[in-house]
Amino acid sequence: MATTLPDTSLSLLERVADPGVLRTLPADRLPHLADEIRRFLVAKVCARGGHLGPNLGMVELTLALHRVFESPRDALVFDIGHQAYVHKLLTGRQKGFDTLRQPGGLSGYPSRAESVHDLVENSHASTALSYADGLAEARALAGESDRSVVAVIGDGALGGGMAFEALNNLGAAPERPVIVVVNDNGRSYAPTTGALAKHLSVLKYGGGAEACRNVFTDLGFTYFGPVDGHNTREVESVLCRARAMKRPVVVHVMTVKGKGHRPSETDPSDCLHAVGAIAPDTGRPVAKASGPSWTSEFGHALAEAAAAHPKVVAVTAGMLLPTGLGPMKERFPERVFDVGIAEQHAVTSAAGLATGGPHPLVAIYATFLNRAFDQVVMDVALHRLPVTFVLDRAGITGPDGPSHHGMWDLGLLSMVPGLRLAAPRDTTRLRLLLDEAVAWSEGPTVLRIPKSSAGTPIEAVASMDGVDVLYRGKGRPLDVLLVPVGPLAQPALEAAHVLQTEHGIGCTVADPRWVLPVNPALESLAARHRLVVSVEDGVVTGGVGTALAQWCQDRGVTTPVHALGLPRAFLAHGSRPELLTQAGLDAPGLVRAVLNATAHRDAGPAVPLPAQGSAR
Amino acid sequence: MATTLPDTSLSLLERVADPGVLRTLPADRLPHLADEIRRFLVAKVCARGGHLGPNLGMVELTLALHRVFESPRDALVFDIGHQAYVHKLLTGRQKGFDTLRQPGGLSGYPSRAESVHDLVENSHASTALSYADGLAEARALAGESDRSVVAVIGDGALGGGMAFEALNNLGAAPERPVIVVVNDNGRSYAPTTGALAKHLSVLKYGGGAEACRNVFTDLGFTYFGPVDGHNTREVESVLCRARAMKRPVVVHVMTVKGKGHRPSETDPSDCLHAVGAIAPDTGRPVAKASGPSWTSEFGHALAEAAAAHPKVVAVTAGMLLPTGLGPMKERFPERVFDVGIAEQHAVTSAAGLATGGPHPLVAIYATFLNRAFDQVVMDVALHRLPVTFVLDRAGITGPDGPSHHGMWDLGLLSMVPGLRLAAPRDTTRLRLLLDEAVAWSEGPTVLRIPKSSAGTPIEAVASMDGVDVLYRGKGRPLDVLLVPVGPLAQPALEAAHVLQTEHGIGCTVADPRWVLPVNPALESLAARHRLVVSVEDGVVTGGVGTALAQWCQDRGVTTPVHALGLPRAFLAHGSRPELLTQAGLDAPGLVRAVLNATAHRDAGPAVPLPAQGSAR
Repeated sequence: MATTLPDTSLSLLERVADPGVLRTLPADRLPHLADEIRRFLVAKVCARGGHLGPNLGMVELTLALHRVFESPRDALVFDIGHQAYVHKLLTGRQKGFDTLRQPGGLSGYPSRAESVHDLVENSHASTALSYADGLAEARALAGESDRSVVAVIGDGALGGGMAFEALNNLGAAPERPVIVVVNDNGRSYAPTTGALAKHLSVLKYGGGAEACRNVFTDLGFTYFGPVDGHNTREVESVLCRARAMKRPVVVHVMTVKGKGHRPSETDPSDCLHAVGAIAPDTGRPVAKASGPSWTSEFGHALAEAAAAHPKVVAVTAGMLLPTGLGPMKERFPERVFDVGIAEQHAVTSAAGLATGGPHPLVAIYATFLNRAFDQVVMDVALHRLPVTFVLDRAGITGPDGPSHHGMWDLGLLSMVPGLRLAAPRDTTRLRLLLDEAVAWSEGPTVLRIPKSSAGTPIEAVASMDGVDVLYRGKGRPLDVLLVPVGPLAQPALEAAHVLQTEHGIGCTVADPRWVLPVNPALESLAARHRLVVSVEDGVVTGGVGTALAQWCQDRGVTTPVHALGLPRAFLAHGSRPELLTQAGLDAPGLVRAVLNATAHRDAGPAVPLPAQGSAR
Repeated sequence: MATTLPDTSLSLLERVADPGVLRTLPADRLPHLADEIRRFLVAKVCARGGHLGPNLGMVELTLALHRVFESPRDALVFDIGHQAYVHKLLTGRQKGFDTLRQPGGLSGYPSRAESVHDLVENSHASTALSYADGLAEARALAGESDRSVVAVIGDGALGGGMAFEALNNLGAAPERPVIVVVNDNGRSYAPTTGALAKHLSVLKYGGGAEACRNVFTDLGFTYFGPVDGHNTREVESVLCRARAMKRPVVVHVMTVKGKGHRPSETDPSDCLHAVGAIAPDTGRPVAKASGPSWTSEFGHALAEAAAAHPKVVAVTAGMLLPTGLGPMKERFPERVFDVGIAEQHAVTSAAGLATGGPHPLVAIYATFLNRAFDQVVMDVALHRLPVTFVLDRAGITGPDGPSHHGMWDLGLLSMVPGLRLAAPRDTTRLRLLLDEAVAWSEGPTVLRIPKSSAGTPIEAVASMDGVDVLYRGKGRPLDVLLVPVGPLAQPALEAAHVLQTEHGIGCTVADPRWVLPVNPALESLAARHRLVVSVEDGVVTGGVGTALAQWCQDRGVTTPVHALGLPRAFLAHGSRPELLTQAGLDAPGLVRAVLNATAHRDAGPAVPLPAQGSAR
């Protein structure tokens, strides 16, 4: 079935519009339904992109879950949520799949706005068991302990510390009926690392003796497994037994990532974990890539930096390829450490590495750094350790929605004493700044790069004390100093051009490259302009512009600083360009913002003044 | 020995000025040395305060560690660090104990500035194993795997997620000689909760069979134990065997918190975990308390709120009494959940509770919220769940130093969409705002309270739309709007009085009570003044003042906003009043700041203007 195009007779799936119908379906119809679901998923996801491998592995397990438990009376919590497509299909959202991850369309994760069957929207890993613990406590308080709480978590996410914290609590409360379904496909993106994964492997292949006594039973759980996750009857049977225990149970289910779709099953990197539009029969992208991505450019630059600097080692939290560490891993395998989905440990083990001599580089998605803020502050910065963080997917990302936008990092890191943060505007600067970062030995450094194709280099027209001047206005020069962060240099340049040619406003566009802490060279630049406008794609409060404004205040520079950035709001899924436009961070948005901020000036005084009239 | 005053013949301890000497000491002298150390600790800590119980339990274990391993060639990493007093004594710092935790004196934690034997200064829990993992990797890369890495961690901290992440990595690297010493006294502050603690208990009392197979061996470790942590010979012997394994080993050591000092051993709450000056023979404070603390006032207010609101439940991460949950626990034991040292799980299980109906309140030290920022953003705020956080020890704390100041919370939380944060200025407001917080059902709320005595109430002279006006200047009114955060209302009031009587500057002091997001009523107030000065004891960039400035900018209010707060720096230990003075956040500091900011005005234009002269 794998390589055929979907046929049009999806009658059984169409009939299962809600889980109630599914429960009435004779068990012998399930293989056919599973087959239909796989065809549907392959067709829809290949057409528009999305998470493929994880969901193909979840088909039979999800069917069994919805037949044994009664959602929403019983609670089903899917960890991360990109494994919930089948759940979406079975809870009335088949039609939405044509708009999956499109602006205004179906979310790629559970969404409470879409369905009462969705409880948890977050797509960061390892949270489901904690939610389940709280839900079970709530039900116990309400005298509703007969309502089961089921959390589905992958073996990769199970290695995350907070999942262990939850196990530690769940296992100590024998009266609460929480069922932890471990969806063990042996992989997160790549094969799961770590001692727990080895232990799970022993449970899978070691025979019956281990089932009596293992890490889960030691922590107070009843353990059922291992069970074949593609045998619906078997899974249903074990889930029924688990439910009947009315106590904490771990059900260990073995699944195959990408099951039933040969290109997914055989994909060597990550079983087509998440894809753009691909050909269903080959798994290859249907559109040409629009040039190399920032990630791949970084990956090659890092491999070269590692060759030049023997002290450089790299750490990833379960995302070796997605963060660009592939080329370095190939050349220097012993210098790359994959700690699994464990951001806290990634950062503090890097601190330990730095204490011992090497210069570690932690490659991580910007949004996942949220998980390790304390470790960055206390374990790295307080110790002034030379650890370099490379934040991939920084700023607006796109179709993964609110929990994947890398919009918190600048606000977080602007608080960290002694930390230096660079935002390369292009890949030429990426290489230069990476070299500077790994050569810096007095404390932590950070590089942030977006999720997009890398674009063309923007050369400076002048440089002073580390600040690159990219544009110098004419006509009415020194009106406005534009300070863009990283790749927002491009729209800033475009805006400066429009402001000059269409509005006679002269802008200087200055890229400080190292944006935190504030480059002192900005002082004289700021003082020579009548308005400073900073531009960043992070939460504006507490970001680079705010730091610049505070810095000017502290030094008596009175030029007003207008900080432009993202609002204090969760941003929906959409494309990066669309979302930047919505936030006013494209060239027309910047033009509007500068015109607004300078409007007072042309009408009266040279710069916006305090409301003197009303002050007395 | 427990209740006698220390004698003056500390000859043996004085002779052991470094670990090299200790290693030459005949084993039969160790009990006497241990006795001397205990007398020393009791005398010094009772005189000036510090961590008592944890260190009394570490005497023999620390002796054994320094005799078996060669620090600093071998690495000794103490988790949290308040268990490292004996280590400090044995590494040349006996004299410093007269200045322990005093400004400029010996740190209450390991400190790299003090000794080459100190590697990790951080006093947040559960980090030691990650450091050890990184250190061991560094040594393997350098071909120095013969240098042992030893991490000492308590059974309480072992329940923290990042400790598990580290175990998961350490256990998967059989070639690295890392020794994890579990200092199992069955307690963190209070008795340790959770399934792992139960399992440790089985290992302690269950006999030999469990030693062959347990959670540590399942994770790839060799397990030695349980061993009596007060028998130096036994501990030395097992540490030697562990070192010889040249692979990951867990050594399970049983100790007694407060060992050898009756008031500590028998203290019912936390074995005199951390104390001020106390009488050595009774464990009772020698000075009268200076009025009830914020924490105790909160505790009583919460118990009443819980009585009035049956939906209110409380969650603590291993710190039930220190965060004031005692009174509620007494009255409503089934509505208080102690999850152990597990801040991430505390927050997300609260999210689960809220999903199920209750209104959870998470009581946590402000600095430890760093550990759960991602959970606050993604698991609570993204889901708009009504969880109330009460941040104890917010702002400057005192003798615990850089990692205990609660100075990051405002910067973190100012970014969180939909979150409301209140800073009560006194305990009257604490009760009112707590009631408002638990009645709010549309998203997360936060209350922040300091570590200090509660002071006297400050009544408003007027109120408008939630903003309390505490002072209205005369003579030259409407010059300056002072916006203090929480208890900084007191110095703001004092400063306003001085500014008026001594400098003729009229101030309005306005307490918005809910400081995040910005109260819209501040718009007209700000516009009617010529300068706004905000005052907070958090990192100033990204805090309340910054949010206010951004908010004014976005609405075209052009009154300059000067934000005063803490610098982007790690602050040493000291008393709260001293440190506030250093940061310029006492009344004289505020007077100076206002005078500076208004200096231009009296010389020329009414408010500081952009540098027009240089702008063209």
